[in-house]
Amino acid sequence: MTDAHNYAKDNREQFKADYLELLRIPSVSTDPAFAEDVRRAADWIADKMRSFGMDAELVEMPEGRHPTVLGTWNGAGDDAKTVLVYCHYDVQPALKSDGWETEPFEPTEINGQIFARGATDSKVHVIAQMKAVESLIKTDSCPVNIKLAFEGEEESGGETLHAAAKAYPEKFKADIAVISDGVIRSPQQPAIVYGLRGICTMELWLQGPIRDLHSGHFGGTVHNPAQAIAEIIAKLHNDDGSVAVTGFYDDVAPVETAEREVLMASEPSLNEEWQQVAGAPQQWGEPDFILHERIGARPTLEINGISGGYTGDGFKTVLPQQAFAKISCRLVPNQDPVKIAKVVQDYIHSIAPPTVTVEFRHTDAQAPAVLLDRHSPALQSTYTAYTKGWGVEPVFERAGGSVPITYAMMDVADDVTIMGFSYKGGRAHGQNENIYLDMFYKGIDTAIYFLQEIGSA
Amino acid sequence: MTDAHNYAKDNREQFKADYLELLRIPSVSTDPAFAEDVRRAADWIADKMRSFGMDAELVEMPEGRHPTVLGTWNGAGDDAKTVLVYCHYDVQPALKSDGWETEPFEPTEINGQIFARGATDSKVHVIAQMKAVESLIKTDSCPVNIKLAFEGEEESGGETLHAAAKAYPEKFKADIAVISDGVIRSPQQPAIVYGLRGICTMELWLQGPIRDLHSGHFGGTVHNPAQAIAEIIAKLHNDDGSVAVTGFYDDVAPVETAEREVLMASEPSLNEEWQQVAGAPQQWGEPDFILHERIGARPTLEINGISGGYTGDGFKTVLPQQAFAKISCRLVPNQDPVKIAKVVQDYIHSIAPPTVTVEFRHTDAQAPAVLLDRHSPALQSTYTAYTKGWGVEPVFERAGGSVPITYAMMDVADDVTIMGFSYKGGRAHGQNENIYLDMFYKGIDTAIYFLQEIGSA
Repeated sequence: MTDAHNYAKDNREQFKADYLELLRIPSVSTDPAFAEDVRRAADWIADKMRSFGMDAELVEMPEGRHPTVLGTWNGAGDDAKTVLVYCHYDVQPALKSDGWETEPFEPTEINGQIFARGATDSKVHVIAQMKAVESLIKTDSCPVNIKLAFEGEEESGGETLHAAAKAYPEKFKADIAVISDGVIRSPQQPAIVYGLRGICTMELWLQGPIRDLHSGHFGGTVHNPAQAIAEIIAKLHNDDGSVAVTGFYDDVAPVETAEREVLMASEPSLNEEWQQVAGAPQQWGEPDFILHERIGARPTLEINGISGGYTGDGFKTVLPQQAFAKISCRLVPNQDPVKIAKVVQDYIHSIAPPTVTVEFRHTDAQAPAVLLDRHSPALQSTYTAYTKGWGVEPVFERAGGSVPITYAMMDVADDVTIMGFSYKGGRAHGQNENIYLDMFYKGIDTAIYFLQEIGSA
Repeated sequence: MTDAHNYAKDNREQFKADYLELLRIPSVSTDPAFAEDVRRAADWIADKMRSFGMDAELVEMPEGRHPTVLGTWNGAGDDAKTVLVYCHYDVQPALKSDGWETEPFEPTEINGQIFARGATDSKVHVIAQMKAVESLIKTDSCPVNIKLAFEGEEESGGETLHAAAKAYPEKFKADIAVISDGVIRSPQQPAIVYGLRGICTMELWLQGPIRDLHSGHFGGTVHNPAQAIAEIIAKLHNDDGSVAVTGFYDDVAPVETAEREVLMASEPSLNEEWQQVAGAPQQWGEPDFILHERIGARPTLEINGISGGYTGDGFKTVLPQQAFAKISCRLVPNQDPVKIAKVVQDYIHSIAPPTVTVEFRHTDAQAPAVLLDRHSPALQSTYTAYTKGWGVEPVFERAGGSVPITYAMMDVADDVTIMGFSYKGGRAHGQNENIYLDMFYKGIDTAIYFLQEIGSA
């Protein structure tokens, strides 16, 4: 136990009180009705930063957007490294009538769990990271310079911080950046997400006849677009679950044997999670790859939405003029999102029948995959910090989703790591969002160890 | 020209005035707000029937439904045949703000066309048939007994008349029934629809995971129901457009060479109509059959609606738990709707992958095909009546849709015919519904000739 850890232990009640106080501010960023509450949360955080010796400012974003709180502390001197910690203090909307058992903005403690909107996503990170810095500064033991960049926009797009980091590079520049958000494997099992899939999306539109037709009068003479789009979609995958699009896998970086061993560690837990959360009749996907690879290391092509014809109650015997599908591809390292979007579109054009016309819309949402170096100082320090803070060695994970802020952080620092203190049972975005207080305290300890590790490296 | 035709000619202005008066009553059966207007229309029609010597009553339907006007005239004596003429006096809703160029319930004459809701569907038939009977009765030349059954429910389901005909068989019983509704080939070209396809419908539901999933977190490990339903739908047709369902064509009555010759007469007109109305990039369907056969004499399987996942604006990377499709089959003579619904469901079950569960809902809407005898007295009298009334020999058509009232009429009379005076350009159910006054007058003449033919047969 270091001085900073003792300080954190001695001040647990105050840290918890501050956490609950922030949870009471409904900093809902997506609803303009809460704009003043979002700013109140930002002011509250800035005041807290100042209370233990940091400089703090609100970095204003474009009109109608919410500020980023930027706390700065340079007490470690010019020779010390600078660590930027990213969190977000805004939350998703929540009403008790949505199905909450407690008031979402009146944090409630039940058997060591705190129930409140933002408890897990992501005010636990805001307070834990800030309290870790406080513990180090107040015990005169902070070995690195600190930038705390707490965003107020994550739940409503989160693009402004990236723009701000580009507009004010000096404000955000750091040696190491920590994205403190997201979940670990379980309350007991910490995890380091070092891989994130990229994405490209598109809408496929098929036009058949020039208007909706009566299926009695024209059925049998017109290629129904709702049928034609099904026939196209059916050709996008092979029977074994692999993607049939020509060139789709050309650039995929293979998973080496050593990394597969790393990924295998999470396989039992991932399988259990699949049963509990997905619970489909049986698993599906490329048979030559383990579940962890199919989620995090293999690209996919997914139908996120399909629509054509009459879909309301009852029956309308329409032969629709159009049908569309929303398609997204999750991408892995070495795949170029622009290239993949093109091969998918080219392939669909090549298989589309002459009885319909094909159009693609909204093809602009694209991001490449991210693969952080498991052996970098930032990730190794994260590993050590979790091991000490949680008392358990973390597993390394490649996650299937995308975290846009990663690209912003890779712009401000060469070495980026991801450090989450919440868990999937925490119900981010859902009713009865919660976290275990034990995870909050372990998070503070872990964050302290991390900064100490970086300082001693 | 017979006495009745001279009477009709002499009274054209009054007949037109009555037609316009009925068009001004907004007898919208689907909207309870118009219930009094529907009854006002029924009373108006009954009064008109009495004005030229018919008995008339309103046959009440179950609570909340609209009455059928039943006019009866037995002046031809016990030895004469009885002809029942079916029309409907209710209309679809219409607002000028829907895109009408004139007030829908203020009939407007422009260059010999009447624009009004109900002008073509179906008050032209109500007035034309009633005025034909008036012309015969008032000239003491009506050779048959008459029942005019004018329904007020056709646009809101039309099931009550069938029930009433079963409840009061004596009221509706006739030797010959005429369904006076629907369209002819063009304003210049009369047509007799002697074939109607049957129908069976169903909803196919696929369930994959037990909840909607994040497509990043689970994509590649769960068989997406929106993809799986596409894969199933793609297997319902062969590449040549024929239906791939095992047993689907087993009972289909073939079209004999002689009948194909009859159907060929409409082929140029049907092709032209296809180009104008459907206008898809190219035609589609079973290559061994002419367009008329594919529309009227071959069964089809149509996707009337498909839906799964997120279909609103923007993107949501959901892996949906469910997807569904609304499927209808148009049936031809000798196909049993219950059997066809079963073979389709059995086939889908047999091809469905084990990664999803399949359920069928709303499988109860079923009707067999109808094929009237082109050589029966009723159809031959219709042929002669059109030839005299229109001055052009009618073509015989097999239509692709279904007309539920046909089954009710087949219950009340052994010999049933269909006699329409409107045309497809009349925009039934659409904005700017219209008809040519010339068709109205030809309709009256044709209806007179028909009753004279029946009387002399």
